[in-house]
Amino acid sequence: VSFSLTILGSSSAIPTSQRFPTAHLFNAGERFFLIDCGEGTQIQLRRFRIRFGRINHIFISHLHGDHVFGLFGLISSFGLMGRKTDLHIFSPPQLESILESHLNTFGHERQFAIIYHPLTGSKPKRILDEARISVDTIPLKHSTPCYGFLFREKEKLRNIRKEVIRFYNIPVKDIMPVKEGNDFVQPDGTVIPNAVLTYAPPPVRSYAYCTDTQILPKIASQIEGVDLFYHEATFLRKDEALAKKTLHSTAGQAAKLALDAGVKNLILGHFSVRYKTVQPFAEEAALHYPEVHLANDGDVYSIEPGGLVFLKSIQSATAGQINDTDT
Amino acid sequence: VSFSLTILGSSSAIPTSQRFPTAHLFNAGERFFLIDCGEGTQIQLRRFRIRFGRINHIFISHLHGDHVFGLFGLISSFGLMGRKTDLHIFSPPQLESILESHLNTFGHERQFAIIYHPLTGSKPKRILDEARISVDTIPLKHSTPCYGFLFREKEKLRNIRKEVIRFYNIPVKDIMPVKEGNDFVQPDGTVIPNAVLTYAPPPVRSYAYCTDTQILPKIASQIEGVDLFYHEATFLRKDEALAKKTLHSTAGQAAKLALDAGVKNLILGHFSVRYKTVQPFAEEAALHYPEVHLANDGDVYSIEPGGLVFLKSIQSATAGQINDTDT
Repeated sequence: VSFSLTILGSSSAIPTSQRFPTAHLFNAGERFFLIDCGEGTQIQLRRFRIRFGRINHIFISHLHGDHVFGLFGLISSFGLMGRKTDLHIFSPPQLESILESHLNTFGHERQFAIIYHPLTGSKPKRILDEARISVDTIPLKHSTPCYGFLFREKEKLRNIRKEVIRFYNIPVKDIMPVKEGNDFVQPDGTVIPNAVLTYAPPPVRSYAYCTDTQILPKIASQIEGVDLFYHEATFLRKDEALAKKTLHSTAGQAAKLALDAGVKNLILGHFSVRYKTVQPFAEEAALHYPEVHLANDGDVYSIEPGGLVFLKSIQSATAGQINDTDT
Repeated sequence: VSFSLTILGSSSAIPTSQRFPTAHLFNAGERFFLIDCGEGTQIQLRRFRIRFGRINHIFISHLHGDHVFGLFGLISSFGLMGRKTDLHIFSPPQLESILESHLNTFGHERQFAIIYHPLTGSKPKRILDEARISVDTIPLKHSTPCYGFLFREKEKLRNIRKEVIRFYNIPVKDIMPVKEGNDFVQPDGTVIPNAVLTYAPPPVRSYAYCTDTQILPKIASQIEGVDLFYHEATFLRKDEALAKKTLHSTAGQAAKLALDAGVKNLILGHFSVRYKTVQPFAEEAALHYPEVHLANDGDVYSIEPGGLVFLKSIQSATAGQINDTDT
């Protein structure tokens, strides 16, 4: 079952020729979740050949343009493409009036409903709870209300040992309780322990997304041990004062948090265009966390039960550049 | 003096992996005019290495998303980049309230003024009149008020023949009247005809931009003989009924108009994603107009006094594709 992340945009507020503003496409068992939607997101989705008509849930961290401006075009294209499926949007509450006012002005005929799920509060909340996956908010601290998102698979049923099930002649109706972890009691009263009948399912996988925010050491407990952790690293340590002032984080701060939380894999992104290359972000993070990934548009991370596999970069390498233009 | 056009987006309402929504960058003597601003325009400007901080005038043909949605991000980036120069926006009047409401919600600190120039009326109007160039509206017919734009250089001063000026000892103060086409009268009353003193300046160059619109044969007189004519060709003849219904044009209709108007060069664009390739657009247009250019993102057309030079395609060839994605 797929559990993968495609980076659609890895720049901060200003895009570059190589990096679009923030957007992630998260695929959990072929359910597509779009996380943030910077300008040009629909173009990246096409470029990376993602069948984006299958996106039914969009999560918007906060209402700054570089995380939102792609929504207008994406929703417009959904309408033109004849979409009929409900679209769920999770975001700070003000988005509803902004988007509805937009749709009134620019909207084409639309055959699908938009269902708004306002994000509120300063404590983590479960905002999606499905059979296979849950999504919780991670309240962050930025210049406007902002939330990270924690995606976690549900515990799976235990795997049955077919030969043992056959040996004990367990009827079909009793298989589900066994998969759920129960022992099996034979007609004569003999108890067959569950551990004999089953073996453990693969561990649940998880992905935590945190941007934009000043560093929040207290979230370590909520994201403890996640398989994949994306955190913004807008600045380098030498600009830590600026990070504090603008409520952003440095690469070093994010790496330290990743270490404290014992996450299995760390990805940094949202690089400020004031820097020419990403190399210093890797060097700074390596002082705290053993191996760090720096996001590039088009990178796909796939989390296998045993850990992370870096699948491939869809688009041509960015050669580590951030800002290669002079305007 | 430069007089060139860069295609930033050549798709219609839905962008593709190869074609962004509509936007043109027109450079007249190093004055940069942005014409329409579809989603991702600022990214294309960076990709094509255009110093877009020099854009002081933006012309919006009409208020459909694929011609407007890039404005929000572009203006936001201007703010973040520290722009201080006034920005002039020419558009149907409703844009002002839309954009101002946006800037109130998403706006960063901004050190430059936006000056709105509402486009109105059903007759051509001069909306910009500078020393070297003028811009007139070309009223079009679409499902919402829509205007094309005619850019035309001002008549230049005549070139003086230096050796003749020297021969007649013409004082410096009398040079300008001669450049303006006047004869020179010597102290003894002898008239030296201007044609002896000067030769003609290069002819003025012009560019006409028309999208989105149903075909309007009556505009032929306004655009007569322009050096470069961009017209939308959303559909092919086989879908002419659909073109009529949606107030768009076919490739054949646009080419026939180009022939009637005696334009020197024709570029078609705004291709519907219902078609897989652009080849049929060229074939259909060739039935009416001898040589047609099909717009690709990144193409640069430079108009020399003697006619058109196709400079180069900045980005890799699109191989004539329109829609290569399946969503």
